Amino acid sequence: MTQSRPAPTQAHEHLDLPRGFRCFVTAAGLREHGPDVSLLAAEDTENASSAAVFTQSLFAGPSVRVSREALSGGAGRALVTVAKNANVATGQVGLDNARELQQLAAGVAGLDAEQVFVASTGVIGRRYPMDLLRSAFDAMADDGGVGATTEADAVAVAEAMMTTDTHPKTAEAQVAGSDARVVGIAKGVGMVEPNMATMIAAICTDAQVPAEELDEVFRRVVDRTFNALSVDTDTSTSDSAVILASGAAGPVPADAFEDAVAAVCLDLTRQLARDGEGATKLLTVSVTAARDDAQAKRVAKAVLNSPLVKTAVHGADPNWGRVAMAIGKLGVEGGPDQDIDPEKVRIVFGDLETYPTFAGEAELERLTQIMSAESVEIRVELGIDNSGEGGTATVYGCDLTREYIAINADYTT
Amino acid sequence: MTQSRPAPTQAHEHLDLPRGFRCFVTAAGLREHGPDVSLLAAEDTENASSAAVFTQSLFAGPSVRVSREALSGGAGRALVTVAKNANVATGQVGLDNARELQQLAAGVAGLDAEQVFVASTGVIGRRYPMDLLRSAFDAMADDGGVGATTEADAVAVAEAMMTTDTHPKTAEAQVAGSDARVVGIAKGVGMVEPNMATMIAAICTDAQVPAEELDEVFRRVVDRTFNALSVDTDTSTSDSAVILASGAAGPVPADAFEDAVAAVCLDLTRQLARDGEGATKLLTVSVTAARDDAQAKRVAKAVLNSPLVKTAVHGADPNWGRVAMAIGKLGVEGGPDQDIDPEKVRIVFGDLETYPTFAGEAELERLTQIMSAESVEIRVELGIDNSGEGGTATVYGCDLTREYIAINADYTT
Repeated sequence: MTQSRPAPTQAHEHLDLPRGFRCFVTAAGLREHGPDVSLLAAEDTENASSAAVFTQSLFAGPSVRVSREALSGGAGRALVTVAKNANVATGQVGLDNARELQQLAAGVAGLDAEQVFVASTGVIGRRYPMDLLRSAFDAMADDGGVGATTEADAVAVAEAMMTTDTHPKTAEAQVAGSDARVVGIAKGVGMVEPNMATMIAAICTDAQVPAEELDEVFRRVVDRTFNALSVDTDTSTSDSAVILASGAAGPVPADAFEDAVAAVCLDLTRQLARDGEGATKLLTVSVTAARDDAQAKRVAKAVLNSPLVKTAVHGADPNWGRVAMAIGKLGVEGGPDQDIDPEKVRIVFGDLETYPTFAGEAELERLTQIMSAESVEIRVELGIDNSGEGGTATVYGCDLTREYIAINADYTT
Repeated sequence: MTQSRPAPTQAHEHLDLPRGFRCFVTAAGLREHGPDVSLLAAEDTENASSAAVFTQSLFAGPSVRVSREALSGGAGRALVTVAKNANVATGQVGLDNARELQQLAAGVAGLDAEQVFVASTGVIGRRYPMDLLRSAFDAMADDGGVGATTEADAVAVAEAMMTTDTHPKTAEAQVAGSDARVVGIAKGVGMVEPNMATMIAAICTDAQVPAEELDEVFRRVVDRTFNALSVDTDTSTSDSAVILASGAAGPVPADAFEDAVAAVCLDLTRQLARDGEGATKLLTVSVTAARDDAQAKRVAKAVLNSPLVKTAVHGADPNWGRVAMAIGKLGVEGGPDQDIDPEKVRIVFGDLETYPTFAGEAELERLTQIMSAESVEIRVELGIDNSGEGGTATVYGCDLTREYIAINADYTT
């Protein structure tokens, strides 16, 4: 139904934003080269609406704090992003700076400050270079100033969001039964294990969707896409996912709209996983026949996040026993997963069962082959609810490589 | 009071076992070179006792299963270990093999099978090469057969336990006010995040301690030592810690005994952390002023296990913001740590406060210096209970390096 692009590394050269959107991109000088500030804005009509979810980190920064204010009642119409500096753990000065940024962006977009979401990622504990940012917005306001652009191009916005991302991440889908589109933009390849929120993602649509309905749809979709993503178990202080609806295409069929949003978010999720810091492979773990979806997700995340599973996938080492180990970790005293019975569990790599009936040496070569692919899928059947109505979850991550260490051992220096 | 050796990489060349102990070590051929099977046995007198804790993994193997049987009432008198093969996820055959191993060891030690603990680590999902093991115990029974030894040397036992360990790990302490000693032996540098249990550790003492008291002492000590250790968040299916008391030295002062056991276990814990797979540094995280000890441990583990903190420590990158990020992760909805207030938190590296009063660029050089040391200590004051009676925890781990990836990307091939 939807025209999503499931390939995880799909690269657009240019991708038109939906009707009713403008964007501004500029190189403020936070990065050595390239754009580092973006502003994405929907026309402020009575048909526009928005929704958003944010990190649950206790150390959530001023960006998230001022964005939460913009969230209420679907009032948000624009998103401003800053790369390379998270503006987190920066005290009162950091909060003041976030509010000024909101105002600067609102000035350019012709909105009120409280209509602007702010998303910022990069080093924690450093203040914004406000002089650079003020100059950048002056240039944007002039429209045509150094480095500024107003082409309605999602790829340009994606590029301006990148930190350690190796390529800009965008996705699109048509809403079936209408001429409305959904366009998604995302960044974030390290410090990624969103928890009821996500890294930075901006979803734009010209569909007209009431704010309350938009919020419900977005939360359902985020839970099965961005919240099913983990690069390294480290939850960012800056995770933000925003959906802006301009309404320019008018009302759309509700199911088709959710399908389109889901397709775009899943596509972005797979792109983020595949581009995880240092990653060479996309790792997908699916769990079925669980007591409920929450249990399925715990098991799937335990496998996805095990450094020993991740390194085995990296080396295509047919060490399937590590998946059993990772599931076994959930046996902790007083935990909710005591009903997992190793005798009922089935572990499958691709289409090869490795537990309980794995024959041993003879099939190791085939397992090595399966694990050598660019995309490795591990399936775990828990055998707790075999009715077909059992809990399920699919989660997305990547292998763990020397390159991850190299990127992160000297990130700030 | 105790003569423990706190240096984490203390290497003994020879370390006498306490009175009343014998050991047998042999090269059965599971490893390419060197010893791989050990048997450590206390004399079966009426003054002897034992206690043990095991992994909580749902996939706990036959070794743990038969050892749990040996545990009841402090009946265990010996520990047999096998290296390079965990005998886990091996079905009924694996359980039968574990029972045969128990019997073979009992035959050599002159004990009943149910007096023998079994501990086995290595690849998961492969069966024991029973022919090799049978031959090895035949040789041991002959005492003096190929590769067998009965020198009462803790280092020889530690060597036979090693898998990816780079050196044998032993520790000793005198029980103050007595002539009893406590000698500890441990292995395990990957798949290490014990949970109310541990990797393989064997503690021997000639003190006479009733089984029930021994069990209480050991659980208290393990909780603050081995259970405060994490190399890579992956909990082994084979974790076992055993304490054997021969009683040969007679009764001892209770507090001094616990001090000695604690000193030995802490020493081993630091050795294991420092020798974590690929590690170049010991990382210690202490948390104070928490609501309770459990909260302190959650916070400490979140920091210790963050791959971004671990890689920053590896590269001596003064990116202290990642510690704030790691604490922030505990903010998950419905979680128990919503009372952590970033405004009250204090983060200290060595003796340098980095939050909230870190001055910025000026002190980055000093922070880099602190993080360049072989041992890095991070202290977090939560500021929730400042009465001096607040919860505390100290946990032990290591940095995350390219070498960890290299070791684990092709472990079985």
